[in-house]
Amino acid sequence: MYDIIIIGCGPAGMTAAIYAARANKKVLILEKETIGGQMSSAPLIENYPGYKNISGSELATNMFDQMIDLGVDFELEEVNEIIGGPLKKVVTDDNIYETKSVIITTGSKYRKLGLENEDNLIGKGIHFCTSCDGIFFKDKIVAIIGGGNSAVINALTMSDICTKVYIIQNLDKLTAEDILIDKLKQKENVEIITGACVKQIIGDDNLDSVVVETNGKENKIKLDGMFISIGLTPQSEIVKDILKVNKYGYIESNNCVTDLEGVFVAGDCRDKAFRQITIATSDGTVAATEAINYLNNK
Amino acid sequence: MYDIIIIGCGPAGMTAAIYAARANKKVLILEKETIGGQMSSAPLIENYPGYKNISGSELATNMFDQMIDLGVDFELEEVNEIIGGPLKKVVTDDNIYETKSVIITTGSKYRKLGLENEDNLIGKGIHFCTSCDGIFFKDKIVAIIGGGNSAVINALTMSDICTKVYIIQNLDKLTAEDILIDKLKQKENVEIITGACVKQIIGDDNLDSVVVETNGKENKIKLDGMFISIGLTPQSEIVKDILKVNKYGYIESNNCVTDLEGVFVAGDCRDKAFRQITIATSDGTVAATEAINYLNNK
Repeated sequence: MYDIIIIGCGPAGMTAAIYAARANKKVLILEKETIGGQMSSAPLIENYPGYKNISGSELATNMFDQMIDLGVDFELEEVNEIIGGPLKKVVTDDNIYETKSVIITTGSKYRKLGLENEDNLIGKGIHFCTSCDGIFFKDKIVAIIGGGNSAVINALTMSDICTKVYIIQNLDKLTAEDILIDKLKQKENVEIITGACVKQIIGDDNLDSVVVETNGKENKIKLDGMFISIGLTPQSEIVKDILKVNKYGYIESNNCVTDLEGVFVAGDCRDKAFRQITIATSDGTVAATEAINYLNNK
Repeated sequence: MYDIIIIGCGPAGMTAAIYAARANKKVLILEKETIGGQMSSAPLIENYPGYKNISGSELATNMFDQMIDLGVDFELEEVNEIIGGPLKKVVTDDNIYETKSVIITTGSKYRKLGLENEDNLIGKGIHFCTSCDGIFFKDKIVAIIGGGNSAVINALTMSDICTKVYIIQNLDKLTAEDILIDKLKQKENVEIITGACVKQIIGDDNLDSVVVETNGKENKIKLDGMFISIGLTPQSEIVKDILKVNKYGYIESNNCVTDLEGVFVAGDCRDKAFRQITIATSDGTVAATEAINYLNNK
């Protein structure tokens, strides 16, 4: 019987585990894939306060060791179901665990283009987060793929950093708010390409260029980097029948407390404005504190 | 002319500076006292994810170096006034700075007991920061006033330095995390006194003793030093005429965005549920992101 089971071993989950273990709670953390979650695939993190630069996997390892030293149990098992009630059951491929409370930190995944070569070049010219990796392309040429608010905000951000920014949108127009589009159009170093589909990604060790099709004509664009900004998919499948999720699949909460008694949510799978490592660790802190208070008051 | 002026150089302010500088914004951070703010006085931090343990001053230095490397301007000047408008003026003792936006990260300050003689003896036996001043009491007798996490952490720190440590708590039990309390109870030179109120501070040039009331009985305890660890007061004096503050003085906001255009708030001075370093860095991230979007949309 656990006090708290945490589902997902990214920065939110590990921070929740650190706080819960320090409050003498019996904690199990379950992960289906990679310690560190999304963070673990970042070659270089420069915006986590306290580390001038650190690889995502090293930061993940540091957090993991910190958590394990505090006596947190860890299992690499995929969770298939959570059964509610005063005592909850967490069902994995291999086991059924009993717990008094659950913290969901399943994260989200960046949507990809689905092209050949894409996975190989992630972190090597193909990126997703401009506030994480944008500065690596100072005075260089990048493309933003997408045309919604995030894409246009990313293009605006990069226009202050890069010599040239393409924004490549498959629809006939940008779909961001007009105020953002107007601002983007004033930027002399931004080229807006609509009705354009990225057909091919070229590069061996690093991104070299993309082939874009517009009105049936193919055009090769040389790039130092590209940021794919076509959205995130929250990993909320296992809870969508027991918790409220918004229309995009993000889990709704009142500051990390869900409607289901004893179930808390933290990190990128939570409905909120921004997603960064700092915000995930904050969520983990809040969710753990709420869970500890819940357990102590029961 | 700055894009963003940040007032306060704690973890919230430094994180905001890191994010803003990485978006190529021109940033000035102003601090009236200590780099790192409250954090800098923590002898040992064990719950900041990524560091198994680190002193507050070392973590503060790491964040500071990270920020300065990104080209953030820093000045040790006290802000006396912020004048609103489309262009804001930040007035210090020495200068008037112009800026397009402001982020308030003024933090909070140690609460005092409010007793006669207290102010006179600060620095002369009455202290707040064990990592700053603890060493002055090597092989001496001290009391920690309070019973929360900070108080117990301070008591643990001082038990390694002093011959005798009292922890004096006005509530009926210590309210720190169990793991900390368990650790404290194992210390042979620590005496835990609960349900006890400090009534009087005695001393001329230096602290001599305190009078403590327990169950209606007064008892004089001879001390070389005492560390007051009873919480915080928000530092919101300079903005209380231009921003909404709650009844305790914490600045109100909609997730770090204040009612005053172009003015944002982050960290311990903000009205919110919990105050931790993780939550401060999250606040700094959110406030900077909101400020960057505000500047880009203007």
